[in-house]
Amino acid sequence: MAKVAIVMTDLFEDVEYTSPREAIDNAGHETVLIGPEKGTTVKGKQGDVEAEIELGIDDAKVEDYDALFIPGGFSPDELRSDERFLEFVRQFDREKKDIYTICHGPQLLVNADVLRGKDATAVEQVGVDVTNAGGNYIDHAVVIDKSGLISSRTPDDLPQFNEAIVNALNK
Amino acid sequence: MAKVAIVMTDLFEDVEYTSPREAIDNAGHETVLIGPEKGTTVKGKQGDVEAEIELGIDDAKVEDYDALFIPGGFSPDELRSDERFLEFVRQFDREKKDIYTICHGPQLLVNADVLRGKDATAVEQVGVDVTNAGGNYIDHAVVIDKSGLISSRTPDDLPQFNEAIVNALNK
Repeated sequence: MAKVAIVMTDLFEDVEYTSPREAIDNAGHETVLIGPEKGTTVKGKQGDVEAEIELGIDDAKVEDYDALFIPGGFSPDELRSDERFLEFVRQFDREKKDIYTICHGPQLLVNADVLRGKDATAVEQVGVDVTNAGGNYIDHAVVIDKSGLISSRTPDDLPQFNEAIVNALNK
Repeated sequence: MAKVAIVMTDLFEDVEYTSPREAIDNAGHETVLIGPEKGTTVKGKQGDVEAEIELGIDDAKVEDYDALFIPGGFSPDELRSDERFLEFVRQFDREKKDIYTICHGPQLLVNADVLRGKDATAVEQVGVDVTNAGGNYIDHAVVIDKSGLISSRTPDDLPQFNEAIVNALNK
């Protein structure tokens, strides 16, 4: 069983949180929702989903997790303004742990400066940011980099994205 | 009198639209709100302001304007996914007309690829995107580039931002 840290705050893309989390949980792995502050409720941008933050970033330890998942929406732009999340991401990268991201999720990777030389995808307009940050932007439903970075573009890619991350976690 | 094109869609940062527009109008200049479709209502992310799009981007002509203004919020990220807005911005840049932007506004300039070699500021997390896009990010309340690009960081900078853009329009 693997343990996955999900980092998220308000205005996440609802289904980009619920669908992968469900897929990971259903495969028998563990997920923990990490946000700015434990016990607060964060809301999806579509208004469909509310989620309670299970662990505050100040109490989150990278050593407790096998992988990091960053849902999309406007949440990643907010998280990337917070140095605590940037350092959390950098530590996953340094320790060569898997990172899963979809849609606007790579914005957090841009500001953590962990994209250089890596294959990644994102929602189209964020693709420019990926390229500018030294990443190799690829317009595919799911892109798997040898570093363990797995990325997808939009909610339409969720079936392939979920399959790819569950396969990685099962290994 | 100068004429200013404002480009905006949903989830704009309310006061970053209302305050500069009021300052420009009060100085005796003209403003036109341009969005994806004429007659639609766009809403601010704070829920304070609604605005009706006065001209659709398909009918907007750069030759009719002296300057372009891009309010912040999540609106610029949406606009930068639309090639029509990217080309509109590029044409202002090519014709060396003024461009005014605040907060997340430079995201539209990143995707239009018009920041190379220019001094600009933005909200802190977008500063990385500005640098990665070849701009010279400066953490000042207002940054005036010799190209006519005037930029600010957040709503706190609005007094200096409004003064700078009105001064530029009055010349």
